[in-house]
Amino acid sequence: MSLREIEGELVRFRDERDWKRYHTPKNLAISIAVELGELLEHFQWRENEEILASMNDPAERENVEDELADVLIYLVLLAHELGIDLEKAALKKIAKNARKYPVGGRE
Amino acid sequence: MSLREIEGELVRFRDERDWKRYHTPKNLAISIAVELGELLEHFQWRENEEILASMNDPAERENVEDELADVLIYLVLLAHELGIDLEKAALKKIAKNARKYPVGGRE
Amino acid sequence: MSLREIEGELVRFRDERDWKRYHTPKNLAISIAVELGELLEHFQWRENEEILASMNDPAERENVEDELADVLIYLVLLAHELGIDLEKAALKKIAKNARKYPVGGRE
Amino acid sequence: MSLREIEGELVRFRDERDWKRYHTPKNLAISIAVELGELLEHFQWRENEEILASMNDPAERENVEDELADVLIYLVLLAHELGIDLEKAALKKIAKNARKYPVGGRE
Repeated sequence: MSLREIEGELVRFRDERDWKRYHTPKNLAISIAVELGELLEHFQWRENEEILASMNDPAERENVEDELADVLIYLVLLAHELGIDLEKAALKKIAKNARKYPVGGRE
Repeated sequence: MSLREIEGELVRFRDERDWKRYHTPKNLAISIAVELGELLEHFQWRENEEILASMNDPAERENVEDELADVLIYLVLLAHELGIDLEKAALKKIAKNARKYPVGGRE
Repeated sequence: MSLREIEGELVRFRDERDWKRYHTPKNLAISIAVELGELLEHFQWRENEEILASMNDPAERENVEDELADVLIYLVLLAHELGIDLEKAALKKIAKNARKYPVGGRE
Repeated sequence: MSLREIEGELVRFRDERDWKRYHTPKNLAISIAVELGELLEHFQWRENEEILASMNDPAERENVEDELADVLIYLVLLAHELGIDLEKAALKKIAKNARKYPVGGRE
């Protein structure tokens, strides 16, 4: 499924609930920060190895999946509100990065 | 293009540069926060209407596109590192939200 | 009470519980982001006027006080771990800003 | 110097430049996130030991001092706008934490 189809789902979800009025750029940007905070809570006092191991715990895994999803959801909604094609923006940025950091070049 | 294809591009990019060793869960989570901060800088002192109007300025638009892309890129890389299918996680979360907030229900 | 005294309280609190081992720069930085996310949750879907009005609700006010305090607490602990005098750093930065933005100058 | 004196300095600075109109709760909250992102950039690809060692480099140290100060500055300004006494809030929260996590208790 493409990012554009996920965007379509989210916009339909929002319109069915008449929530567009809440979806200002600032509110959506703040929402990304809120969800990122919730994601980071799972990493807060754990070492990297513990974080990776915690993914074997089904409940913890599902919680982290939900937080990652929430960050993505608000990111897609923010791009939508700004009239930005997130998929195209990502591919363009990857191409830019490839020029900026050529393989075999200095980091 | 699907999120999985973007993930494939990013992992290839990373491996060509031998950067996997930097991609710990904490480093990638911190990177999302760094890029989100750069995105928010574009909204910091502007009203919502000014933010939307600023998207008509090609240079400003490209900057915001790049920041949105950077948040997505690190989100996809973090999901990859945790062995999480971000697309599947997003669809599952949208379905969960639909049950939590039924159409016509109280907000 | 000075920031240095608050720092003293926090370090004592931490040492009594033997928590220094968790207080790495990255963990404390992540903690600031976690607490900031919790603070932002109170602003997420509210207009600025609603946020200000919500401060008249004692329970909501206490919640926001707690989140502001948590951000400060982790900021002070991070500065401590880095060996930085946060009070001095703030005064130095205010002086820098005064030179950068002279009164009557252009914004 | 107390947090209240720092607050006094910042409010005077703001009023001399007629910037109060920009200091809405959301703008100041977003500003904390922007500055936190800039702080985190210094930690992004470094191990904790490298971060601590980097404090011996005067230029890097000053940069981190400035970012820590910026987070504090916007935090103090946000508390001011909400009519919250940040110092009192911090001391109250430390007392709450002491009750929640008694010395010798389970973590």
